[in-house]
Amino acid sequence: MTTTAASVEWCCACCPSSRRRNSSSRSSSSDNRRRNNRRGSSSISSSSSSSSSSSSSSSTTSKTNSRKSDKTPPPPPSPSPNSPNSQTPFVKVDARVFIVGAGVGTGSIQNLTIRAANILKSADVVIYDDLGVDSEETLSLCGQKCKKIYVGKRGGRAEKNTSQAEINSLLVELSASGRYKHVVRLKGGDPTIFGRLGNEIEALKRAKIKYEIVPGVSSLVASAAAVGMPLTETMRGGKHFACISGHDAKTNPDAFRDLADVDTVVVFMGGKNIASVVDALLMNPTFGSEQAAATTKSRGSKATASSKRTKSTPCAVVRDVDGAKEKRWLGTLGDIVEKTEGEKLSPCVFIVGEICKSATLHERNVYL
Amino acid sequence: MTTTAASVEWCCACCPSSRRRNSSSRSSSSDNRRRNNRRGSSSISSSSSSSSSSSSSSSTTSKTNSRKSDKTPPPPPSPSPNSPNSQTPFVKVDARVFIVGAGVGTGSIQNLTIRAANILKSADVVIYDDLGVDSEETLSLCGQKCKKIYVGKRGGRAEKNTSQAEINSLLVELSASGRYKHVVRLKGGDPTIFGRLGNEIEALKRAKIKYEIVPGVSSLVASAAAVGMPLTETMRGGKHFACISGHDAKTNPDAFRDLADVDTVVVFMGGKNIASVVDALLMNPTFGSEQAAATTKSRGSKATASSKRTKSTPCAVVRDVDGAKEKRWLGTLGDIVEKTEGEKLSPCVFIVGEICKSATLHERNVYL
Repeated sequence: MTTTAASVEWCCACCPSSRRRNSSSRSSSSDNRRRNNRRGSSSISSSSSSSSSSSSSSSTTSKTNSRKSDKTPPPPPSPSPNSPNSQTPFVKVDARVFIVGAGVGTGSIQNLTIRAANILKSADVVIYDDLGVDSEETLSLCGQKCKKIYVGKRGGRAEKNTSQAEINSLLVELSASGRYKHVVRLKGGDPTIFGRLGNEIEALKRAKIKYEIVPGVSSLVASAAAVGMPLTETMRGGKHFACISGHDAKTNPDAFRDLADVDTVVVFMGGKNIASVVDALLMNPTFGSEQAAATTKSRGSKATASSKRTKSTPCAVVRDVDGAKEKRWLGTLGDIVEKTEGEKLSPCVFIVGEICKSATLHERNVYL
Repeated sequence: MTTTAASVEWCCACCPSSRRRNSSSRSSSSDNRRRNNRRGSSSISSSSSSSSSSSSSSSTTSKTNSRKSDKTPPPPPSPSPNSPNSQTPFVKVDARVFIVGAGVGTGSIQNLTIRAANILKSADVVIYDDLGVDSEETLSLCGQKCKKIYVGKRGGRAEKNTSQAEINSLLVELSASGRYKHVVRLKGGDPTIFGRLGNEIEALKRAKIKYEIVPGVSSLVASAAAVGMPLTETMRGGKHFACISGHDAKTNPDAFRDLADVDTVVVFMGGKNIASVVDALLMNPTFGSEQAAATTKSRGSKATASSKRTKSTPCAVVRDVDGAKEKRWLGTLGDIVEKTEGEKLSPCVFIVGEICKSATLHERNVYL
């Protein structure tokens, strides 16, 4: 795996910052030096576990990034001498797999980050999930020679799905073949939250393939934004929040009991299962009696603990956030099942806790 | 507050999708119709709390968005007839406050979303936090006539900080003056997580000013990405995760006890306080004895419960993720205080749980 600094155009040629960028040095050796300076300041400390990829050399010099400010209000605190030169044109880096979050929104690029867009432009091959109706918009950012491989999954359609084992093998094969320098694994939302990331990372580590995760806008924050509320606010009953999969409501109710004292619970993938999720959140005595017995035996008094939540606890459901089928409901744990009856709720995020009192169903312009 | 559909250029003129976009209809009336179609599909359901903004009319018609696909791999499932036409050029919408997440990264635009970039281009006034050394890069996306007001806060420098009350007043005054159509409140990371969003929303609601939250890349997911690990992975001890403020370790240790059974705990703003945070996570008997006594009295047996975490529980600290001073440490609850001794840790995210076994300090290219 060699390092070739092929200079690739930065994404937004129309932006003022891009014009500044383009007027700066264009030589690839200069670009490389700046990139290395950046790596130097993003320093790596002692590790207690093995690294998936070798640490390359990091230069120790750094340059002060002097810029003329033209803004009238007081400027932010003075720039650090280690400030990265973010005017660096987009360059290709070492061969690796980029596991990229495409953000929420059924394939639209509106929640895609500029970094993710740049990476898609550099991609030699993209292995992409079912991003939704606008996936073509996201994929059109890739170069013409980029190979695009669809590996989407949809619940309940096992015969049409690509298995996780097949995806893992594909990632390793493509990367190890040496034919592709930038392999991009594109996932909806953010890859670190309920994105089956652990499996893919494990396969790459075993094959000693370099990887990097590129964060995206998660449905966690997008859903809270969609109903106009914060996820945390100590004065409004939101000291902390926890995220859990709705699948656990049926298969592992003990996981819900672990969250009995958490102020706000955010349930992913609970759309097909919302009645069971509500029961699990309420710790309904009729819920999961066999598991409760097992829990009592193994974990002391926990199964008899009571939940912080009651039937009057407010909640919000956001389906397909920022997407073509977005719909929002507000209610309580006592009435949300009835309010959403007959609706196809997947994919959805279910937010439960006193902080949902501040949620609203205000007008939005998701495609602004 | 009137609706004027002034056509403003979309951000990325160099992108293939943008070229498609520019070749489509340019008439503002057509743009408006498409936008309204979009609003129609993003439907609003029954509310159990008051809305901060009036629901405008939504057109009921929708058009099938037919596009020619040129990709070779199997396409995703067929587009919904309600698919939004995301080729819509960027248009100005009704007057309102946009509370926008700038993403992590000390003011660089790399983690900014395309939607946020578009909103900055439309801004008449931007009230911005201390984004970091590269804030000029983000702010340069605004038009030349855009007024920029710095209201940054930094811990320990109260005399230089703008108070939250002043920020709330400013937001309301600027919006209510009628001089500015798009007031943008720009915050680092994502606004819904530990972003003091509740205060600002409350002030806007009281003044009956429309607002909309635009999600961003949170340090929550960016920090997990930085150390190459998922936040959830049932098979690796990560069924669920919870987020909490490090300030609670000293002021409200009971909040940490609430998370005793959560697999993974993510602590924000715990950098100056890491020893207390570690004690709180371990529920060290020597920790917060007075509070523990009070808790025992008020909440039964909870204060005597034991934490899921021990001194050997793995953890990761990520300082200034994707920023100029990014640094990462891996360790355990038993040694992380020693490993980070003498370091200025703020701003940092502290991730604790068995799932951190998969964390690595691999080479990254945060400014790609």
